[in-house]
Amino acid sequence: MAATKYPLFTEENSVEAVNARMGGDIDPRLREIMSVLVRHLHAAVKEIEPTHEEWLTAIDFLTRTGQMCNEWRQEYILLSDVLGVSMLVDAINHRRPSGATENTILGPFYVPEAPRYARGANICLDGKGEPLVVGGFVRDTAGNPIEHALIDVWQTNDDGFYDVQQKGTQPDWNLRGVFTTDGEGSYRFRSVKPRYYPIPDDGPVGKLLGRLGRHPNRAAHIHFIVSAEGYDPVVTHIFPPDCQYLDQDAVFGVKESLIADFRTQQEDAVGEDEGLKAPYWQVDWDFVLTKRAKI
Amino acid sequence: MAATKYPLFTEENSVEAVNARMGGDIDPRLREIMSVLVRHLHAAVKEIEPTHEEWLTAIDFLTRTGQMCNEWRQEYILLSDVLGVSMLVDAINHRRPSGATENTILGPFYVPEAPRYARGANICLDGKGEPLVVGGFVRDTAGNPIEHALIDVWQTNDDGFYDVQQKGTQPDWNLRGVFTTDGEGSYRFRSVKPRYYPIPDDGPVGKLLGRLGRHPNRAAHIHFIVSAEGYDPVVTHIFPPDCQYLDQDAVFGVKESLIADFRTQQEDAVGEDEGLKAPYWQVDWDFVLTKRAKI
Ligand SMILES: [Cu+2]
Ligand SMILES: [Fe+3]
Ligand SMILES: [Fe+3]
Repeated sequence: MAATKYPLFTEENSVEAVNARMGGDIDPRLREIMSVLVRHLHAAVKEIEPTHEEWLTAIDFLTRTGQMCNEWRQEYILLSDVLGVSMLVDAINHRRPSGATENTILGPFYVPEAPRYARGANICLDGKGEPLVVGGFVRDTAGNPIEHALIDVWQTNDDGFYDVQQKGTQPDWNLRGVFTTDGEGSYRFRSVKPRYYPIPDDGPVGKLLGRLGRHPNRAAHIHFIVSAEGYDPVVTHIFPPDCQYLDQDAVFGVKESLIADFRTQQEDAVGEDEGLKAPYWQVDWDFVLTKRAKI
Repeated sequence: MAATKYPLFTEENSVEAVNARMGGDIDPRLREIMSVLVRHLHAAVKEIEPTHEEWLTAIDFLTRTGQMCNEWRQEYILLSDVLGVSMLVDAINHRRPSGATENTILGPFYVPEAPRYARGANICLDGKGEPLVVGGFVRDTAGNPIEHALIDVWQTNDDGFYDVQQKGTQPDWNLRGVFTTDGEGSYRFRSVKPRYYPIPDDGPVGKLLGRLGRHPNRAAHIHFIVSAEGYDPVVTHIFPPDCQYLDQDAVFGVKESLIADFRTQQEDAVGEDEGLKAPYWQVDWDFVLTKRAKI
């Protein structure tokens, strides 16, 4: 045949044949992303050597995963979550100096504009669960207190559901609130001990988890976004150490540095937490923010 | 924290953390496939270092690709095609001894049970295009003729559409037919010279091709499935060498060994093709089948 501008496809040069087709003046970042994806995708196919039927099963899985998505359900994010990709992207984008609070994933249940509360308020509006006090400081990496930092907190109720999953059943804004640090960088609020809950597992991703011998449960956690003027906001959780799923969070969100000491208090609270009856749980937890990178 | 059965996720050990979660008694092939996929997927993410926005763009693309699919449109197969994955899977599953006719992809427009025709019949029912005679032999790898081999052939009309894409416009079964080899293994039929046509490019995959500076056209081709009792069927094409897209088929279907010699005939046909007026095209093309592997 005549000389060709582009190489013909063979099993051996498949990556080059595909990547050589990209035009000369396309977006350079898109070129980089696609050439890396094609290289690893072909490497995976060559290692797996899928049969035609296995390939068709993959096509069908990807199709059904897309078709499961609607305005309130994002099955592809779930897939990314259970394959550890969401945590990996989060880790890559939030490498922080040691000592700074580590990030973990945001999750699908964050709602902005939660009620602002005064120090010590109780965000549990349905009365369910074991009482908990969380308090501590927000500081910079040198240990200086940060005043006026915002602590945006949310968690499930004791039945394992977020308020937005049970509109009409739970009080609006149950277990959500925004607190502010004082002049010492101190914050404090009341809530209930968090519990584990399953990610939605009635779709293709849940079925895959089942076939992989995995359960859909997230380790018990409380979500936080901590932010302050001039600092990088941190999106994070704290985890009680006694959750049976601590080492097997379905979305890999647990980091060693985010496991908190949940202490049982056997006597009624005095002083600031006056009125809280024993037994209750208490966590001292500090957040350390890094200065925002200058742009 | 207490000793854990499963490793916690870190950027460094992300692959191990995910793959360690698979249960002990799951399907071993599924375990192999998923562990290879997770390893290459994480390697790609670590190399790309996507921003959160890029990750979300990928999630959105995968979602829309699934949602573009319906009973007559399979956008994920298109994606597999334009990334060279379909050809790679085809190549892996059809490694044949040198000299045997090579496979290429089936494509979405095959229709079983096309009309059976006698030797020399014309499958072009709409009268469009430049006349073509295709003829040759079906043999085994030792050169022996194979009698009663079936040659199932299909192609677009001269406007670049398959009959099934233009029901009511094209005659039913236009440019489709099944021929049989005689005692010498010989076959012969009339048709028209094939032309290039675009794959469907009004969806997410077409938009991606556009951003990659790629066109959606397939190199001109005629499809064949050649089968005979006791032999592996071959799914293949032949390509005219003068198509402008020969070295840039959008789905990478072109193989060197499948480029045929399309000769122009400047005199009216005599003998077997009597009645065919000049100018017309002629291709001599032999198929070589391999014995079916004993199971
Ligand atoms: Cu790889
Ligand atoms: Fe959560
Ligand atoms: Fe075709």
